[in-house]
Amino acid sequence: MSPPSALPTTAAIAAAPEPDRWHFRHPVRIYWEDTDAGGIVFYGNYLKFMERARSEWLSALGLSQEHLRSAGQGMFVVGETQLRYLKPARLDDLLTVTVRLVELGRATIAFQQEVWRGDTVLTQGRVRIGWVEPFEDHFKPGRIPAQILALLPTPIQTPEVDRP
Amino acid sequence: MSPPSALPTTAAIAAAPEPDRWHFRHPVRIYWEDTDAGGIVFYGNYLKFMERARSEWLSALGLSQEHLRSAGQGMFVVGETQLRYLKPARLDDLLTVTVRLVELGRATIAFQQEVWRGDTVLTQGRVRIGWVEPFEDHFKPGRIPAQILALLPTPIQTPEVDRP
Amino acid sequence: MSPPSALPTTAAIAAAPEPDRWHFRHPVRIYWEDTDAGGIVFYGNYLKFMERARSEWLSALGLSQEHLRSAGQGMFVVGETQLRYLKPARLDDLLTVTVRLVELGRATIAFQQEVWRGDTVLTQGRVRIGWVEPFEDHFKPGRIPAQILALLPTPIQTPEVDRP
Amino acid sequence: MSPPSALPTTAAIAAAPEPDRWHFRHPVRIYWEDTDAGGIVFYGNYLKFMERARSEWLSALGLSQEHLRSAGQGMFVVGETQLRYLKPARLDDLLTVTVRLVELGRATIAFQQEVWRGDTVLTQGRVRIGWVEPFEDHFKPGRIPAQILALLPTPIQTPEVDRP
Repeated sequence: MSPPSALPTTAAIAAAPEPDRWHFRHPVRIYWEDTDAGGIVFYGNYLKFMERARSEWLSALGLSQEHLRSAGQGMFVVGETQLRYLKPARLDDLLTVTVRLVELGRATIAFQQEVWRGDTVLTQGRVRIGWVEPFEDHFKPGRIPAQILALLPTPIQTPEVDRP
Repeated sequence: MSPPSALPTTAAIAAAPEPDRWHFRHPVRIYWEDTDAGGIVFYGNYLKFMERARSEWLSALGLSQEHLRSAGQGMFVVGETQLRYLKPARLDDLLTVTVRLVELGRATIAFQQEVWRGDTVLTQGRVRIGWVEPFEDHFKPGRIPAQILALLPTPIQTPEVDRP
Repeated sequence: MSPPSALPTTAAIAAAPEPDRWHFRHPVRIYWEDTDAGGIVFYGNYLKFMERARSEWLSALGLSQEHLRSAGQGMFVVGETQLRYLKPARLDDLLTVTVRLVELGRATIAFQQEVWRGDTVLTQGRVRIGWVEPFEDHFKPGRIPAQILALLPTPIQTPEVDRP
Repeated sequence: MSPPSALPTTAAIAAAPEPDRWHFRHPVRIYWEDTDAGGIVFYGNYLKFMERARSEWLSALGLSQEHLRSAGQGMFVVGETQLRYLKPARLDDLLTVTVRLVELGRATIAFQQEVWRGDTVLTQGRVRIGWVEPFEDHFKPGRIPAQILALLPTPIQTPEVDRP
């Protein structure tokens, strides 16, 4: 199977993480909890690392997810994830997780994210996020509130990478 | 430090898991997600295994935690845990988690629980549970509803073990 | 963004989980550990559920991942995951996770997997697996051992779904 | 049940986290992955937070757990944990996890640890750690290597708290 077209090739991002390619960077240390019996980081945990970086970025932009949630205004939900695991991370590693907003719509936004150790990219991913608002005793999909969209920057277009 | 007095000695439970010593048993398979780079189960996960067994037991007794929670009636919260990790479990292991209700009060209940692989006890624990009910935008401690207490059996007293 | 082409549409799998569409099914109960503050299952955990189903299937085929690992023969590693989260699961839910082997090569194999609650599909995914073998103090990619490939069944081709 | 004697009372530590009471402090941010459907941090995750703080402290002391592990020298294993969950943490919270070495033996060491949000203590714990070394294809308990013990400071005695 060829790689999904939405994911950049390793070659294409060889120069990352360059400052103008990413909206945000977040450090992640690897602890015992993150590893598995293979001696490496359990692949499922990269979704957590990418989420941590997005959450820190939203906090840095002034957005409190907990306030929105407990006030009953709504919350972001993850709709789709595509990840490629290129090289393993290990106990004690200090990684850098990058965040690039690549699509900004009324109903969903999309991120390109990577996990690096030094100048080596370990994992690449694309994450699509939607919004839900309270409805009866649960939630239903809705439009992302305008005041939240206003906090977000212009997406970084990387056509040569994302649409080869 | 001597072992906490609330925990039975390994010798004292050598004959477990005998049917009349436990209210419930639950099987747990070990997957990659449960292990760490030491090649064994991450110790923090035994709390999850014990919770799974308690939840299955409550379900078997006819109690729906999700119904109570989403209906705003309240929920159990864990107040205290004491665990001893005696021997490691590994990938692919099929374990048995036991549940014994040992204290039944209006404000809290307590469980003695163990994790076994075959006839070998791997982990022993005591877990104290309280109850919280909705209060303003959060929760506050409360008395366990009488209809829930009525579902629970008489605690199994094991004085020779629990109070040496 | 249109859905990744490798993932079947919801309509296309409306009749699943039919027996002849899947190699294996595995039940998963939702516990507190699986949920998040949104009141639903944390999306990252579906990767764990899919892994559990694959591991149980491999065990059922007679393959011990722990034996292979501790004997130093090698292990499967996840190379790529694509998931779509369609509807949420909640505390106490009993889900069915399906496994369909869709590609069987010397270097990688691929699975189509879904998570169902009753007759509702909640999550769809494609997972690509590789093989690594011990090399110096770590591991390197290798060919899947022939005796393992021999245990696996013929992939189920679903061209109308996977290559629209 | 009275609290286990090994755990300090809340009153006794009201002045914490004072610099001379702890060997180390580590910040922990709460993300979605840490919470559960109760809207608060899943209690089992405090063991992870305490482990992160101990690991960061060991790193700061110059000790690489990954080097020890992959070089086949041995590793720390958790033998016993006692935790009390006093107040909940929530999404977006920034917590402080403290580490105090309270016992230093040849076979085991023990830590007193707490989790704070601002000047409020949320969780208190005692964690006992042992050492294992490679033996045949697994590990067996052993003495903590002298060069590791030499890196550790004098335990902080808090008799008025730990033995009331």
